[in-house]
Order: sequence, then structure tokens, then C-alpha cells
Amino acid sequence: MDYTIEDAKGKLGVLIPGLGAVATTFIAGVEATKVGIAKPIGSLTQLGNIRLGKRTENRYPKIKDFVPLAQLEDIVFGGWDVYSDNVYEAATNAKVLHQQQLDAIRPQLEQIVPMKAVFDHEYVKNLDGTHIKAKDTKYNWALALMEDMRKFKEENNCDRLVIVWCASTEKYIETSAIHETIEQFEEAMKNDDPNIAPSMIYAYAAIKMGVPFANGAPNLSCDIPALVELAKELNVAIAGKDFKTGQTLMKTIVAPGLAARALGVNGWFSSNILGNRDGLVLDDPDNFKTKEVSKLSVLEEIFQPEQNPELYGELYHKVRINYYPPHGDNKESWDNIDIFGWMGYPMQIKINFLCRDSILAAPIVLDLALFMDLAQRSKMSGIQEWLSFYFKSPQTAEGLKPEHDIFKQLIKLQNTLRHIMGEDLITHLGLDYYQDLVEAM
Amino acid sequence: MDYTIEDAKGKLGVLIPGLGAVATTFIAGVEATKVGIAKPIGSLTQLGNIRLGKRTENRYPKIKDFVPLAQLEDIVFGGWDVYSDNVYEAATNAKVLHQQQLDAIRPQLEQIVPMKAVFDHEYVKNLDGTHIKAKDTKYNWALALMEDMRKFKEENNCDRLVIVWCASTEKYIETSAIHETIEQFEEAMKNDDPNIAPSMIYAYAAIKMGVPFANGAPNLSCDIPALVELAKELNVAIAGKDFKTGQTLMKTIVAPGLAARALGVNGWFSSNILGNRDGLVLDDPDNFKTKEVSKLSVLEEIFQPEQNPELYGELYHKVRINYYPPHGDNKESWDNIDIFGWMGYPMQIKINFLCRDSILAAPIVLDLALFMDLAQRSKMSGIQEWLSFYFKSPQTAEGLKPEHDIFKQLIKLQNTLRHIMGEDLITHLGLDYYQDLVEAM
Amino acid sequence: MDYTIEDAKGKLGVLIPGLGAVATTFIAGVEATKVGIAKPIGSLTQLGNIRLGKRTENRYPKIKDFVPLAQLEDIVFGGWDVYSDNVYEAATNAKVLHQQQLDAIRPQLEQIVPMKAVFDHEYVKNLDGTHIKAKDTKYNWALALMEDMRKFKEENNCDRLVIVWCASTEKYIETSAIHETIEQFEEAMKNDDPNIAPSMIYAYAAIKMGVPFANGAPNLSCDIPALVELAKELNVAIAGKDFKTGQTLMKTIVAPGLAARALGVNGWFSSNILGNRDGLVLDDPDNFKTKEVSKLSVLEEIFQPEQNPELYGELYHKVRINYYPPHGDNKESWDNIDIFGWMGYPMQIKINFLCRDSILAAPIVLDLALFMDLAQRSKMSGIQEWLSFYFKSPQTAEGLKPEHDIFKQLIKLQNTLRHIMGEDLITHLGLDYYQDLVEAM
Amino acid sequence: MDYTIEDAKGKLGVLIPGLGAVATTFIAGVEATKVGIAKPIGSLTQLGNIRLGKRTENRYPKIKDFVPLAQLEDIVFGGWDVYSDNVYEAATNAKVLHQQQLDAIRPQLEQIVPMKAVFDHEYVKNLDGTHIKAKDTKYNWALALMEDMRKFKEENNCDRLVIVWCASTEKYIETSAIHETIEQFEEAMKNDDPNIAPSMIYAYAAIKMGVPFANGAPNLSCDIPALVELAKELNVAIAGKDFKTGQTLMKTIVAPGLAARALGVNGWFSSNILGNRDGLVLDDPDNFKTKEVSKLSVLEEIFQPEQNPELYGELYHKVRINYYPPHGDNKESWDNIDIFGWMGYPMQIKINFLCRDSILAAPIVLDLALFMDLAQRSKMSGIQEWLSFYFKSPQTAEGLKPEHDIFKQLIKLQNTLRHIMGEDLITHLGLDYYQDLVEAM
Repeated sequence: MDYTIEDAKGKLGVLIPGLGAVATTFIAGVEATKVGIAKPIGSLTQLGNIRLGKRTENRYPKIKDFVPLAQLEDIVFGGWDVYSDNVYEAATNAKVLHQQQLDAIRPQLEQIVPMKAVFDHEYVKNLDGTHIKAKDTKYNWALALMEDMRKFKEENNCDRLVIVWCASTEKYIETSAIHETIEQFEEAMKNDDPNIAPSMIYAYAAIKMGVPFANGAPNLSCDIPALVELAKELNVAIAGKDFKTGQTLMKTIVAPGLAARALGVNGWFSSNILGNRDGLVLDDPDNFKTKEVSKLSVLEEIFQPEQNPELYGELYHKVRINYYPPHGDNKESWDNIDIFGWMGYPMQIKINFLCRDSILAAPIVLDLALFMDLAQRSKMSGIQEWLSFYFKSPQTAEGLKPEHDIFKQLIKLQNTLRHIMGEDLITHLGLDYYQDLVEAM
Repeated sequence: MDYTIEDAKGKLGVLIPGLGAVATTFIAGVEATKVGIAKPIGSLTQLGNIRLGKRTENRYPKIKDFVPLAQLEDIVFGGWDVYSDNVYEAATNAKVLHQQQLDAIRPQLEQIVPMKAVFDHEYVKNLDGTHIKAKDTKYNWALALMEDMRKFKEENNCDRLVIVWCASTEKYIETSAIHETIEQFEEAMKNDDPNIAPSMIYAYAAIKMGVPFANGAPNLSCDIPALVELAKELNVAIAGKDFKTGQTLMKTIVAPGLAARALGVNGWFSSNILGNRDGLVLDDPDNFKTKEVSKLSVLEEIFQPEQNPELYGELYHKVRINYYPPHGDNKESWDNIDIFGWMGYPMQIKINFLCRDSILAAPIVLDLALFMDLAQRSKMSGIQEWLSFYFKSPQTAEGLKPEHDIFKQLIKLQNTLRHIMGEDLITHLGLDYYQDLVEAM
Repeated sequence: MDYTIEDAKGKLGVLIPGLGAVATTFIAGVEATKVGIAKPIGSLTQLGNIRLGKRTENRYPKIKDFVPLAQLEDIVFGGWDVYSDNVYEAATNAKVLHQQQLDAIRPQLEQIVPMKAVFDHEYVKNLDGTHIKAKDTKYNWALALMEDMRKFKEENNCDRLVIVWCASTEKYIETSAIHETIEQFEEAMKNDDPNIAPSMIYAYAAIKMGVPFANGAPNLSCDIPALVELAKELNVAIAGKDFKTGQTLMKTIVAPGLAARALGVNGWFSSNILGNRDGLVLDDPDNFKTKEVSKLSVLEEIFQPEQNPELYGELYHKVRINYYPPHGDNKESWDNIDIFGWMGYPMQIKINFLCRDSILAAPIVLDLALFMDLAQRSKMSGIQEWLSFYFKSPQTAEGLKPEHDIFKQLIKLQNTLRHIMGEDLITHLGLDYYQDLVEAM
Repeated sequence: MDYTIEDAKGKLGVLIPGLGAVATTFIAGVEATKVGIAKPIGSLTQLGNIRLGKRTENRYPKIKDFVPLAQLEDIVFGGWDVYSDNVYEAATNAKVLHQQQLDAIRPQLEQIVPMKAVFDHEYVKNLDGTHIKAKDTKYNWALALMEDMRKFKEENNCDRLVIVWCASTEKYIETSAIHETIEQFEEAMKNDDPNIAPSMIYAYAAIKMGVPFANGAPNLSCDIPALVELAKELNVAIAGKDFKTGQTLMKTIVAPGLAARALGVNGWFSSNILGNRDGLVLDDPDNFKTKEVSKLSVLEEIFQPEQNPELYGELYHKVRINYYPPHGDNKESWDNIDIFGWMGYPMQIKINFLCRDSILAAPIVLDLALFMDLAQRSKMSGIQEWLSFYFKSPQTAEGLKPEHDIFKQLIKLQNTLRHIMGEDLITHLGLDYYQDLVEAM
């Protein structure tokens, strides 16, 4: 396999369905970074290092100095939203960032105005938007989105586009017959089939336009056979789903640690309180269902109870999200983990994470935009499992269980980068350090 | 390199300096497992799986079915202690395990009676023991320990021995000239040099006898150039130091997770309360110093502030251990972690771990005993860095920084096992899953 | 008012609807206390002191030495349940107490066998019982319960009876016309009106028999005008409702402290996990509703937002109960309290209470049984508001707001005891200590 | 006793030794309140209500409308400090309040400039100040302070003065012979006796000038027989010691709640992290000793183990303060409370208080200034025990144990106010509500 990577020349348009708290925090952070008043903390592409070679070589370049990514200076932002607020107004309403920071980059933010969204109230009952495309068939909506992309690219003189879904969680639906082949899918769009969710229309439009598409919510979106097949066929990179932030991030950190040590777990209770629009949407049981499915599978894949019935066969896992306005975007999670050790003796771990929802999500949007663009330029088409590091519910090839362990995901990501750049993969074996020493003596 | 591994035939004597809470919990657990009334939860060698080959092959044998380890049935226990209590009495006093469990295996435990210890009150001020070898030179003490080993092996008809240090933390000392070469070291032992701590005498005696030695406390013990050199020369496996349990275990789980995501950390406060003999010993500032050095380095090695000054350059790390009798062996830790994300926004993580000190340590003793024996039979002599997974302060080759990230340590351990068994190392690259699919289409 | 208190002579029968975890823990604890293998910790009547006179007098008798209460030795236990298990069996199933403790008093517990319960599945959907009285009109059920009481009293040679409701929370209903007068109420019972819950039938039967009745669940039960009137008329003491344990106990401790200091509160989120039968019953939204109403009012009454709009006008209060089997009876609560101080600066309090549901409730059952009996012998008929100390949702005279502040409730209780015994009430004024000193100089 | 209260006419000078974080937060808050940009949350005198008469009367006037207090508009601020920064500069350095709030009242704050302090490095090793009075005898220092007061009063045209100590905790000293009588005390001041701490010199000067003196730190200061006697003789109100904020505040809220319910406590571990100047001073063991004594006595007085040996006889109480710069003034406490209930079953409470040191202390300064002035105008001289509500270690008459229970302290405070205003004291008896109802029927 040859990974001749195209240059990251010219402008990269980052288009975002859903210019709410996450997206505006992402955009404001990039703009603030450009003018030197903030740092893109949490972004692997901007701040992360990667070890190359042996430990004793001491080679730890920054990732952005190792692989050819687009520069922040070359990014142009755009998107769609059900409200007509520009990014300055939307960021102000979101109350995530200090107002004085927003004011310092007001001109840059004000000029980013959303395009009219494809929206169906049926999928998100707790939201009402007015800045939406006129009623039409779902297929025609897809064509309209494609035209939006074309125009945006032209008007902003972009070399490439990439799309990252940052809109709300849609209600729960399962894969059905119309999602199986691209023919059935297109037919269903034309017939306004209720199994076609808006996020699928965006994904379809992106793929048809050759634009990489990453999905930050737990909705199916591009995770259906028809669109996987289409992406393969048209050589477009896709990835998903559901940004891994907050409690699930902690879960995929802590659970592998317990599993590493063969400690048993018989209960894991997770409670969340948050008061932003995301919390409001998830207060609807239909939408929470979509989220719950995404959140629950995590532990099962990490603990593999079928391989370890003595340790994880009785695990009771429960996740609750509570809408709690006093906290706004300052999401807080509380986990109680019931574990058992040697001879079955019980122990408990309590984790209280006072986090910020959009602050944790924003750097993921940046990394995905840049890595998806890299993948596309490297001709890595179809599902980008190496980016599962960023997702609660990683999309994988059919029949392949996803890795949820964040550390395996990180190695996967890093070894993928080493691989496409022709560097040795790292196995952490390290026996040679001791053999060399022997010989040297 | 050829890893012809000798068979694990005959009996394995596990000798333990320090038959206190940890050691008696370990022994009782193994005996209870033998008679089927308990399970050795937390032990990788007994319950852990290892993935072999590709994910789709679905090969996850138990480690004990993959590498040739000694059987629990073949283990014989012995040790040294400053109190003359047999293991039943000592376990009863330790109040870690339910009395009815101890009573069920009372005969097995009662027959394990400690040999007289080499002990110097100067190194552990808060302990007073009477079951100790008569005053003599440190060199003669070493000879006496070697004679103990010889006799134990003969009387118990053992094929092999292994030693795991489970005694108290000694006071803080640093490497000095007399630790540099084996000649200087032996000379110093003969002169009763105060820089020779008891744990070094045990290590020396073990190595001289060709017995693998693992150190569960933070004292230097075998981590000095003279003994490393001797181990190499005599082809003996050594490893250390300081069992990784409780708070440090959580730290090496959570810190890599934060580093993985390039989240900044500017403060980490760790408080512990425990009421066992370990807590009492650590109430003496000289002994706490030894522990503190072991605990503090962990974060620095994981976060690498020199590579990541923007994220970890300002990290303030403080560790406190408080003797608190009401909790006994039920150690409890509380961590406050001050992190910052996108644009520098602060967040906090609080972790409250209600653990059990000896319950977490016991399976480590078992795994180390079995893996050290495996290493010896595989002719892997000198420092066993692949076992750093079990240590707060892993011993490494001079000039080589240890890995503290528990996930890298686990991969190192697993890939070492794969390596000596001739299996493919795992890199988590996994691009082939998608290439196969392409070709298949 | 004259409080000539009748002697506590002869036996006191304590009858309990609902011989589940709480009731059996209560009974076992009293029996264990009688034989000297346990102490009735948490019981004010057994272990509490009461200050009499001035601080300098140093008079702190035990409450049981100050007021004439029935002796533990004189208590006889009985009750009704929907399962036919005797108290030994029921306590064993409840898994609250160590089995060896139960075994030590097995004979005493085995001889307590429940009478058949009045039960209507409609009110507690998640329970199914078979040990229930044959279908009949609610009025006839009341007569049958009265006959049960008469027979129990006679067979056990009791001087007096008292009833404490320990059964499950019934589904939510509100006071309606048929609860207004005793005539309407009796008519409704005869007509099997669905607004007559089983707990009302028990309360009615008790009052008619002159037996004091205390209600440990949040159901209305005796808290309806008809039964209040009847209790007054027949000079019977009644009290309720909902034992104050766990999270609400902590809430009525902490909230008055914040109010004392005029600290503002704008959010209070309370989450509970528990895995006992109570948790199962409350997993049904209808039953949780009853509990929620009882739990939510607490903060409003303590903070009085109408008097303190600047401090508590915006308070958002949310309570969640989650059924979580791994914890069994070991209920755990987690509270996040958002407060603000000087100039409005925000602060947070997190409280994690690892409690035991039945262990906290059992001493309340004992105290209520003894104090209700005392009230009856003191001719304090009708609502016993001075016992609001024990209830989440204290029953008060119509139009009178309950005190929820546990400290005011305690003073009320203590001053009531002082009052009926002819001692000075305590006001904590204490200026005289300083005036005496002046004069003495 | 007649409490003819003098009018609060004219200006009240509030003088503060120690214009650091607490004092400047207090002053800024009052100034911000005056111009309407903040509210004095946490201040009982400004926001607290007091119930008068029966519950059904519904009389809850604000305290400031009930007793004649000085108005905020009539307060003039002054003080002494070892640094010459004005209050605007000092508040800016303290980093407690948002800079924009300070800027809004900059002119008012800038004009408050400290007088030179009486300071002795020996008592506070971790502080170095330069803005201090020239070396002289301690007696002459007292005279200089008295002259400062006289001049301040004259220049600011004050009707009355009051002093509230807000400076650092001094090193631990105990009462000795020279503290017994005023003659010995004055003699010792002239001889520069090392047992005369600076805070005593301030207290002496205040009392001699007829200025009420309240002590917010745990140093002895006015809590010595000589100064108590002098205050009595000169009819001056004094009070102390150590503002009750943060963890101890929570402790005196929660402990009475546990005691109320006769729940046993066998362990209470309290850890604090804070990074302000107070934390730095307490990092010196001599100064921490003073604080520790103040903090430890609290539980003993509330639980009265001598009265309740079965519940509190084995209580192990430990308090730790850790200097942790990342948190600045945002003090955080973590408490682990080991309790036991019915039959001795153990339970645990964990409290994590994310507070702000100065935000909690500032309203106490205000209340003490106003209440001490009220006491002085009411001719309540000597120790004001009714203000023990505000102190960790309330000063009381010799031989009289302090009340630490915050709820008894509150009743004491409120009943004192009712008493001096001629209102009925409240006992919470409330039986009449039910008797009236009986008669009315």
C-alpha cells in the first residue's frame, strides 16, 4: 500500500451542520488562536507529540510537524443551523466562553452566517427552528445541500471541504431495509421515507460531493451500509460516531485500567447533570435512547464479559442524563464503580468530573477536520477506524467489533500516522535495550 | 534471541521477607483458591486473557494457558518476619480477611512459620521486632539468609525458589559510592556500612543463590549498580520497585488518558488515609520520604513536561499519606486534579477510591512470583522491565527512563509474552481489515 | 394543661404493617439488644441525652431515664405482610444484617409470623403478594384488621398497642371529597372507592381501636381530614409521614446550615442509588411520584423563598432515585449543591452518603413506637407534630406549615419532653452567665 | 436588665488589622453594594430574617429592620497592614474578585490606605512586611495604635469605632502568668515579654480606647483574663475567635445533625487545600498548631463524648491543611466521616466543599462590625458569647464550655436579639397550635 499524500495547499473549508455551543466554541477557539489570545489545548493535531524510533533516540516531534496537515490559517468556516444567528451571536447565547474573549474576535465571528438547515422537527422534538430550507422531498434537500457546498467552495475559494456534524442528537432509529443499498436509499429519499433522518441527508450529500464527513452525534447518519458502500465507491473518507467527551471519555480511560489488572466489576452507575441545549434535547426519551445506546456499549466492548465471565459476567451498567439548568454548559458527571479484587473483596471508585461540554468537544472537531482532510489526501477512503479515538461509538467495518479502550485507540491512531509516513510501528517490546547493554558490556 | 523455556516441573518455593498484611493475604488467597473457596481476582496470570492474531481470529487464551507458568498446586510458601506469628496468626491480626475464611484454611496457614528476619530498627523507626537474627556483620547476615534459602529448598523439596519483598518501606537513602561495584558493596557489608539497608542484604543473598528477586517496596534494594551487575553476571532475574496499587494505580490509569487527549494539567493533589502497619511506618517522615520519591516521579514521566511545556510545564503535584486508624487496611484515596482544555478553560476531576491495600497487592505478589520464575526459566536475566506494569517506580537500565503509563506497560508485558512464545506482536494498526474488505468487494 | 402521664406498666404490642427490610432490622436489633449482642445506636429514646437546666448545672440525663417510656423487655412484636415468611426468614432475605447475628436470635425471630395483609396490587404495581386477606369490601377489611389487633392484644397479654407503618410506598393520590369527613370516608370504604388506599384502612382500624398510629411512608394514610378528626374525637395519637433517613436527613441538616448563614442556593441536585425492594417499588413512576412530592417540599419549607427571594427565589431542585441492584440495601446518595455567597460568587458542595437504608430507619421505628405510646399515655391526642423530627413530610394541623429544619424539630421534641415533665424550656439565651459573673465580681 | 439602645447616629469607623484578601473582599463588597452592583449575600444583618411571635402570625422582618444597626452608608473603612498597598491594589493582588468589579469602585478603594502595622516576624515566619511601625516597646506600640484610632476617628468625623482582626494566624502560645491581670500584662508589655503577641497589643489598645474588638483569627488576642477583666471594667464589648468558614462551618452543621440522631462517629478526617496567603502562613507548623487547636475542639464540644461514650468515645479526629497554589483563594475541603448506626453497622459520609475563603469570611466581618457596635450601644460589655455563631472557637466566660453547634448558636443569637428588643423568646414548643385547634372545634 502506497500512501503518497497530496499537499495541503490552498484553503480548507470546514462546514458544520449545527452552529451551536460546540461549533461556535470550536470556531472561536481557532480564531482566537490565530490572533494569539488563546491556545488550542486538547487538540492532538496542534499540541500532541508522537514518539518515533527507540526510547533512547528521544524523537518526539509534534504531530503537526510530522504529518502534512492543513494550517489553521488556511481554514474557512461555514455551516448550517436552524437559527439564523451568526457565530458571534450564537457563541454569546451559548455562554461557554467569556464575553470579552468573544468581543476580541467579533468581526471574524460575525461574518460567519449559517446557511438554512435541513431540519425535521419529528427527529428533535425539543427544538424549534425557523431558519430551515423550504419543505421539499428529502432527495431535493440533498441536492440543495450539495449546491450549498458547491457555492461555499467557490465563493470562499476553497481547495477542499470537510464536514463535521455538530448538531443535536436525533431520535432513535434502527437500520432497516431502505438503508441497505444506495439504490434503495435514494429511492427512499425521493419518497420521503421516515427512516431517512436529516443527518443521513447531509452525509449523503457530502459523499456525493467527495467531501469527507465525520459525525459527532450518536445518530446513524453515515453508519448505514448504503452510505459506507457509496463512500468506498467514490473514495470518500467517513467516520463516526458521537464525540467522546466527559463521562464516556473517563469511562474509556478507567475501564481499560481495571481490565488491565483483571479487577472484577459488578456495577457501574453513571449520572450526568447538564443545562445546555444538548441537555434539553436529551430530556426527550426518544433522543436519550439514541444516546444511551451509544453510551452503554462502551463497557461491554472493553470488558468482554464473554471472555471474562468471572470478572464481568454480572456487570450492571446504568447511565442517566439529567437536565439541570443551573450548570449550563458546565456538565458534571458522577460515577460510582463497584469493583472486586483478590478473593472477591469489594471496593468502590467514585469519580466526579466537573467538566465543560463544549470545551472538551471543540478540539475534537478541529482534529477530525484536519485528520479527515489528511485521510482524503492520503486516499484512505471509506470508514476511518483509526479515528475511533474520538468517538463514543466508533464506526467499523461490518462484523468487526470496535475498540473502545482509549489507549488502544491512541496506539491505532499513532501507528497509523507512523505507517503512512513510513516510520517503524511501536510495539513497546523494548527487550533490545537490555540485550544491547549486555553486548556492550 | 532464542527463548527455549525450561519446563515448570516440580515445586516452586515462594519466599517472602515480611509476612504481614500483604503477604498473608496473598498466601491465604492462594490456599483458599486451591480448596475452591475463593478466586484469585486481580491476577493476570490466573484470570487474564491475551489476544493473539487478528481481531477477527477471536483468539483470546488465558495467559496461564499460553505461557508455561508454575501451577498454584506446586507453590510452597515461606518467609522471614520480625514477629514470630505463623501465617494464620499474622493474617488474623491483619484484619484484612473475614475470620471465617481464614478458619477454613487454618491448618495450611498455621504450618507456615517465619524464619528470623534480618532487621535494623534504624531503617524502620516505627516498628519493633523481636524475631530477628542475632547481631552480626551485614555480610554474615547475608550468609545466614543464603543458608535459610538452601535449607528451605531442601526441606521442602523445591525445584526452584523466587523471592518477593513484602516488608515495610525503609527510610530514604540514595545511591552512593559503596553501591557502585560488587567489590565495594561486599566490602561495605563486611564493614557494616550504614548505607547498606536490610533489603539490599536480602537481594544480594538471593542473587548469589540464583534466586529471582522482586522488590515490592520503594527502597533501593536491588536497584543499585552493584546488584544489577551481579544479577547479569549470575544470570538472575530481578525487578522492582514498589507495588503499584491504590492511588498510584489510578494515577497511571488516568494521567495517560489526559495526556492522550492533550488536556493540560496544572495541579494534582493526592491525599490518602490508611490505618494499617504500612500507614504507621509511613507516619515517620524518613520513611515517607522514600515513598514520596516513588510516588511523585510517576506524573512527570507520563506527562513529559519537557516535551509539553504548554500543557504540563506548571504542574503542581502533591502527595499526602495520613495515618488514620479507623480505616485499618481499607485505604482510601482522594485526588483532586485541576485540568484545562480548549483555550485554557479550567475543569476538575475528583477521584475517591475506597480500596483495600492488601487486596490490591496480593495478586501482584502472585503474578510477580510466577512471571519471575518464568523469566528465570526463559533465561531473561537482569532487570525485567517488562514487569514494570506492577511497579510504582519501575527499575530500568541505567539512562533509560521508565514507562509509567499502565497501558504502555501492559502492551510491553503482553508483547513480551507473545515474543517469547513466537507469536506476532500487536500494533493495533488494523488497516488491513479495511483493505481486505476492499479487495473482497 | 396537665400532663399526668400514665405508667408504662405491662406489655406493649408493636404492630407493623410490612415486615420487610426495615421492620425485620428493627425487630432483630431490639432482640439482639435484649440479649446483649448489639446496641440500639441511632435511637434517641435509648441513647440520647437531654440537657436540663443551665449549662453550668451539668444535668444531661438519658431521655429514657427522664421520661417514663416502655422498656425494651416489655415489647411484643407482630405485624402484617403480603409474604408469609416469618421474621427470621424475611430478615435473611433482606440481606441487611450479618447472618450470624440473625442466627444468634433465630428462635425469637422465627416465632414472629405475619398476619395476612390487606393489599391491593393497584397501589404497588411492582409487588406481588400471596399472603393477603380474601377479597372483601374495604370496610370489611378494616373490621378484619381490628379483629387482628384485638386477638393479638389478648393472645400476647398486652396492656397497650401501637402501630408503625413500614410497608411500601403506595402510588400517588391526592386528598379528595371522600377524605373530608369520617362519614364520607366510611361510606367510601363500604363502596370500595379507589381513593381509599390500604394504608388508610390500617390507619382507620388503628384509630377506631384506640391504637396510636405512625406512618413511615409518604402515602397519605392518616393525613386526611377524616382521620385527623376521628383521632381527635377518640383521643388517639397519630403521626407521619415518611421516615426521614439518608439523603433527606442530610438535606434537613445541611439546608438549615446554609440558611442560617444567609448563603444563597440556586441549584440542588440529588441522586440516589439503591437496590432493595424499596428501590424496586420506586422504579414505578406512580410510586416515585408519591415519594418525590414528599422529598421536594423539604427545601422550600426550610429556605422560605417567599421571605428570601434574593437567596432562594431561583432554586432549582431535582431528586432522582435509581434502582441499582449491586448495592442492595446499601443506599447511596450523591448531592450537588450550587450555592452563592458574598457579591454572588458561586461555590459548590458535594455530599456522598454511603448509608444503609434499613439501619437508618430501624431506630426511628423504635423511637416512634415508644414516643407514640408515651403521647397516648400523656393524653396528647391527634397529630403529634413534636415528632416531626422523624419525618420527611411532617403531618401538621391544617393551615400550619411544617418545620423541616431538623434542629428546630429537635428543640421542639426536647422542649416538649421538658414541658410534659415540668422542666424549664431551653432558649439558649444564656445572658445570665455573664450577668452572674458581673455581680460576683 | 434594661437594654436601652443608643441610636446608631453618625459615622461608624470600621478598623481592620490586616488588609489582605478577607478585608479587601469585605470592603469591596460593601462599596459595591452601596453603588448597587453587588449584594451582601451571606450577611445575616443585611439579608437575614427573624421570626417573631407564633408561626401563624407570619412575622419575619429582616434583622436590619428589627434591631437598630448602623447603615452601610455610614461606614468608613480603615486599617493597618504590613504592606503599604491601598485597598484597590491589595484586592487586585488577592485575586478573589473579578477585576472589572474592582475597577468599577476603584476610587473608593484607592483612598483607603493602611496605617503602619505593629508586626513581629517571630509570630508569623512566612510573612515579611515593610510597612511597620518602628521598633519600640510593646507598650509604646499600644500607645501608637491608640493614637492611630484617635486620629482616624477625628479625621473621618466618626461617631464610633469598631475593630475586627483580619490579619494572619500567629504562632501558637498558651496563657501564662503575665496574661492573668492587667497590671502584669502592662508590665510585660513594657518589658517586651515574648508572650505578648501583636494581636494582644491591638486588643489592649482597642479596649483602652473603648472600641469594641472582635478577633477573626485563632490567636489568643483578647481571650486572656487580663483583657477580659479590662473590657468588663471599661464596659467594652469583645468577641472571638477565628471566623467560622469553610470546613469548620460544614462541620458544625453536620456534626449536630449526627448527634441529633444519636448516630455514632468513630472517625472524622478533614483535608483542606488552599493556595492563598493564609495557606502559606499555615504551612509553618507553629502557625498551623494555633489553627489546629481551634479546629479540633469543635467536634468534642458538639459530641460530648463524656456524656455519650458509646457513640463518641472512640472518635479519631484529624485535620490537615495543605498549601496548594493552583487553587489560590478557592479553598477546597474534603471530609470523610465514619459513622455507625443501628447495631453498630458502619456508614460513611464524604463532603467535598468547593468554597472561596474570603467570600465566606467577608460577610462575617460585616456582621461582627455591626453587631459589636450594637452590643456596645446596648451596654452589653465584656464577652459577647451570643456572637459565637461566627467563630470556630468561641470565647466564653471562664469555666463555661462554648456551644459549637451552629444551630444552638443561631438560636442564641436570635433570642438575644428578641430579648434586647423585648420580644418573646422562641422555644419551638408549639403545642398551643394543637390546643387552640381543639378549643376552636
